[in-house]
Amino acid sequence: MDKSPIDSLDKKILSLITKNARIPFLEVARECNVSGAAIHQRIQRLINLEVIKGSEFIINPGKIGYHTCAFMGIFLKKASLFNKVVEMLEEIPQIVECHYTTGQYAIFIKIYARNNEHLKSMLHDNLQSITGISSTETIISLEETFKRQLPIE
Amino acid sequence: MDKSPIDSLDKKILSLITKNARIPFLEVARECNVSGAAIHQRIQRLINLEVIKGSEFIINPGKIGYHTCAFMGIFLKKASLFNKVVEMLEEIPQIVECHYTTGQYAIFIKIYARNNEHLKSMLHDNLQSITGISSTETIISLEETFKRQLPIE
Amino acid sequence: MDKSPIDSLDKKILSLITKNARIPFLEVARECNVSGAAIHQRIQRLINLEVIKGSEFIINPGKIGYHTCAFMGIFLKKASLFNKVVEMLEEIPQIVECHYTTGQYAIFIKIYARNNEHLKSMLHDNLQSITGISSTETIISLEETFKRQLPIE
Amino acid sequence: MDKSPIDSLDKKILSLITKNARIPFLEVARECNVSGAAIHQRIQRLINLEVIKGSEFIINPGKIGYHTCAFMGIFLKKASLFNKVVEMLEEIPQIVECHYTTGQYAIFIKIYARNNEHLKSMLHDNLQSITGISSTETIISLEETFKRQLPIE
Amino acid sequence: MDKSPIDSLDKKILSLITKNARIPFLEVARECNVSGAAIHQRIQRLINLEVIKGSEFIINPGKIGYHTCAFMGIFLKKASLFNKVVEMLEEIPQIVECHYTTGQYAIFIKIYARNNEHLKSMLHDNLQSITGISSTETIISLEETFKRQLPIE
Amino acid sequence: MDKSPIDSLDKKILSLITKNARIPFLEVARECNVSGAAIHQRIQRLINLEVIKGSEFIINPGKIGYHTCAFMGIFLKKASLFNKVVEMLEEIPQIVECHYTTGQYAIFIKIYARNNEHLKSMLHDNLQSITGISSTETIISLEETFKRQLPIE
Amino acid sequence: MDKSPIDSLDKKILSLITKNARIPFLEVARECNVSGAAIHQRIQRLINLEVIKGSEFIINPGKIGYHTCAFMGIFLKKASLFNKVVEMLEEIPQIVECHYTTGQYAIFIKIYARNNEHLKSMLHDNLQSITGISSTETIISLEETFKRQLPIE
Amino acid sequence: MDKSPIDSLDKKILSLITKNARIPFLEVARECNVSGAAIHQRIQRLINLEVIKGSEFIINPGKIGYHTCAFMGIFLKKASLFNKVVEMLEEIPQIVECHYTTGQYAIFIKIYARNNEHLKSMLHDNLQSITGISSTETIISLEETFKRQLPIE
Repeated sequence: MDKSPIDSLDKKILSLITKNARIPFLEVARECNVSGAAIHQRIQRLINLEVIKGSEFIINPGKIGYHTCAFMGIFLKKASLFNKVVEMLEEIPQIVECHYTTGQYAIFIKIYARNNEHLKSMLHDNLQSITGISSTETIISLEETFKRQLPIE
Repeated sequence: MDKSPIDSLDKKILSLITKNARIPFLEVARECNVSGAAIHQRIQRLINLEVIKGSEFIINPGKIGYHTCAFMGIFLKKASLFNKVVEMLEEIPQIVECHYTTGQYAIFIKIYARNNEHLKSMLHDNLQSITGISSTETIISLEETFKRQLPIE
Repeated sequence: MDKSPIDSLDKKILSLITKNARIPFLEVARECNVSGAAIHQRIQRLINLEVIKGSEFIINPGKIGYHTCAFMGIFLKKASLFNKVVEMLEEIPQIVECHYTTGQYAIFIKIYARNNEHLKSMLHDNLQSITGISSTETIISLEETFKRQLPIE
Repeated sequence: MDKSPIDSLDKKILSLITKNARIPFLEVARECNVSGAAIHQRIQRLINLEVIKGSEFIINPGKIGYHTCAFMGIFLKKASLFNKVVEMLEEIPQIVECHYTTGQYAIFIKIYARNNEHLKSMLHDNLQSITGISSTETIISLEETFKRQLPIE
Repeated sequence: MDKSPIDSLDKKILSLITKNARIPFLEVARECNVSGAAIHQRIQRLINLEVIKGSEFIINPGKIGYHTCAFMGIFLKKASLFNKVVEMLEEIPQIVECHYTTGQYAIFIKIYARNNEHLKSMLHDNLQSITGISSTETIISLEETFKRQLPIE
Repeated sequence: MDKSPIDSLDKKILSLITKNARIPFLEVARECNVSGAAIHQRIQRLINLEVIKGSEFIINPGKIGYHTCAFMGIFLKKASLFNKVVEMLEEIPQIVECHYTTGQYAIFIKIYARNNEHLKSMLHDNLQSITGISSTETIISLEETFKRQLPIE
Repeated sequence: MDKSPIDSLDKKILSLITKNARIPFLEVARECNVSGAAIHQRIQRLINLEVIKGSEFIINPGKIGYHTCAFMGIFLKKASLFNKVVEMLEEIPQIVECHYTTGQYAIFIKIYARNNEHLKSMLHDNLQSITGISSTETIISLEETFKRQLPIE
Repeated sequence: MDKSPIDSLDKKILSLITKNARIPFLEVARECNVSGAAIHQRIQRLINLEVIKGSEFIINPGKIGYHTCAFMGIFLKKASLFNKVVEMLEEIPQIVECHYTTGQYAIFIKIYARNNEHLKSMLHDNLQSITGISSTETIISLEETFKRQLPIE
């Protein structure tokens, strides 16, 4: 639809570095048949264009003590309180995604807790005491069957 | 609950590298007051323990042409078809998360499409033709207000 | 049920002009075996009877930049605020239909937006700030498979 | 998003003819300060570009005997039957809109009936006997508060 | 809407006899200032016109041992099985009303049972064994706050 | 469960008079092999015991101009407003049944209207302006397939 | 409603032994001012009348390794499969309650699992493979705020 | 997951006493091949560890006059009122379980009533007058098919 500023070399680079952020740029350069400087330049440009938002090591939540993963739909007292409530949600670090969605919920989040008891106390002490939230609906993920990045085509 | 095999040095390392996968390990070493070799060793151990699952550059979906983000609840013809359907879903690369959830859905996924028309054709041509899926319910995310990693405490 | 004031000539005329508002009235006259003056007179009478409400060129929303079409159910804080809220909705030109419906919604509308981001900002900035609306539920049309006029029998 | 092929003269023309399909093109020409031939040419081009899909006289359903207006969500036995079912729906002339939607329904339609009894017999005799439809949910519009075209901006 | 064949004398008669089916017709005649024969004639005509469908003593269900009153929405395996299922429902005398409704249910009934245990066995043994019914949803009336006839205006 | 005060003669009488409130008591007496006085006495006793609540001619709503029949679930602002709201509902004569129900609704009613437009104005002008009602959900009966009395066993 | 075979002495005994099943019967006797033999006799009679169904030590699920408690609504392929499915459910010892309910579910159960992963595998391996179950809906109890016996009045 | 402080002898004891709280400890001792003193000591330890919460005779609700059993989902005016509302619920002795749950309800309870009329008056007089409760949804158990303790594995 829109004229993409990304050419096929960009795509090749992206598809290599989204699978492994620690890949040496010289290896990327060799795979792409260009110089290492070109790779550096390209990646910098992709960062400037906000195609790349950053890099991260991917942590396994269960291994750092987060055994309960949940999606939560949030109903607001008034739809106009959206901005205020989102600000408060951002201060709860266990909320890892926050969306403005169609359907019945005003806000839809993904949240981790140490276990079901911890989820209960987070709901009770942190979330439901936010002025503006009238109620919440929780779907617990009993298993994350898979999680991955979008393909670079 | 369970005796965690991760000590405070591990946590310090994790909190540094989850924010920036490209951080030089020597810088991590300096921040932690240990040798670079220790960092390498520790990270390797965290990988062996499956605390670290990998690393990735984070791509902005909108910038590579994915303007529609949706969550989708999937109903199965028979609950026992779960494994077979998940296998088929894994072959659709635009599905970036797949969960086994409580609540009314058998499966809950996160999916990206180029736009609403593309989402329609993916639903119609790829998803709904999978034997075993009886119907789907789609929630469109009109805005991803924020997305981040879990904190390392 | 009610004695209709429309005879078979009216119906023949209507079925010709609902398919093409630009049809020359002389052509209608020829098809109906009456004079052009009769057609003019008949159409004027149908307008006076409010059988005909007007005429319009039909525009393809996607071609003028509206890529997102949605139906939206609106819940009111109090059912008695219906009139006030409808007045406010009428001032949002992208709302093309507004209904008072049975079922769970107080009001049911059809709305167009340039894309999902635009729908989000219309919801957030225009709709949900209307005093009297407590919440909204959005169904996005991923494809308008067909749209047409009622047949004149 | 996409580079629109419509300039400001096109928009002026469209905004005049969408309100009145019978407006003489010379009047449009005068309002736009161009020749009548230019108007003809422009409108032909807009038709070729599929910006204009046609023209129609707008009929008041109640005045031609249609007193019941309903929206209907359709559930399919299998989502893959979508195309077949749509073909059958198209043969029922009282269905004036048909959408492929997000949310719980596979198909969402707008339908007119002479009255509630007629709606019952259409549902029972025409719709629910279509192989592939497992069930339907009906929302009756008790009043069409307003209906209009999208604005040309 | 439709030209009613009922005049004001009919209405006066109806409003007297709907409140008390045992009222002597001479009393009705006196109240209406016409002869008893006129009343007989009028009532016979109202029966012929099917305005009057019969007469009945009104029984208090609780006093004849029916302590549980419920409304029940019925989902069908296929919507086209409506006629067959209704035939079977008519053979269960505790079902006192049966409707073809909009909304999610195919059929909506009112049913009485001696108590909750009896309702369970009726559901389990009589209703749910009807071929064509896929499932049922029960709303129990904990109190019939009032029940009365339509007013004759 | 409870010791019923109704014997088999009562039941025979009830089953005769619930089918026809105008049946001469002498005919009932003959069918039951008892005297007419016994019938009178028995019926009086059944009235005193509140087994019989009255008698009525059954009117066909469609024949006196009521073409729309609906069930309506009512949500209250506070559940404690039940009594007040019921009082107001009782003043709307087109509401013919009112129940206190399990499930999501606080109150469940059966209502008649002249047609869909009339239902809209009753909802808008009468029901939804009652203080205490927060919203309503309407199921329209497109056909009353059957309606009858409970059997006397 | 029904004539209860339980007198006030029975009630006094029941209220003592429901709070502590290990209470010495002589202590119950003293509290009730009757002989120990009378208590033995009374309790035996209550067992014969099936007022008392047994006795049990109450175990804290969390302390024997059950950290996840859930309620689950079960939908059947056909309502008539109820008996067969219940038989299969009874063979899963972690299901501690099983009900036939009104509302949308055919069956409603209470179930314990070691944790969310275990609940997933029980759902996937044990429950959803039962022929006759079409789907399940799970509500997780994040905290059992209280649990107790009915009072003996 | 957590290191359980319960060994196989504890489990053998628990599995014997959860089936019959009145079992003589000497019989338990014989079955386990240890001394009676050891059993006493073990049970006291299990009580201290809060593995055992108490003991009770199990009463059949129907036999003491409770013929209606219901589950009830409670919606709060504000989620933050949870603690206050639970305190009030605890004062209604017919509520035998109270949970903090995922899904749409804030609170989920199990309640007994003498019959449906009694349930209505408890709902109306006791529950719905609690400040903080906005509404309730009731599922009636028409039959408790089975109820038992968790197995000791």
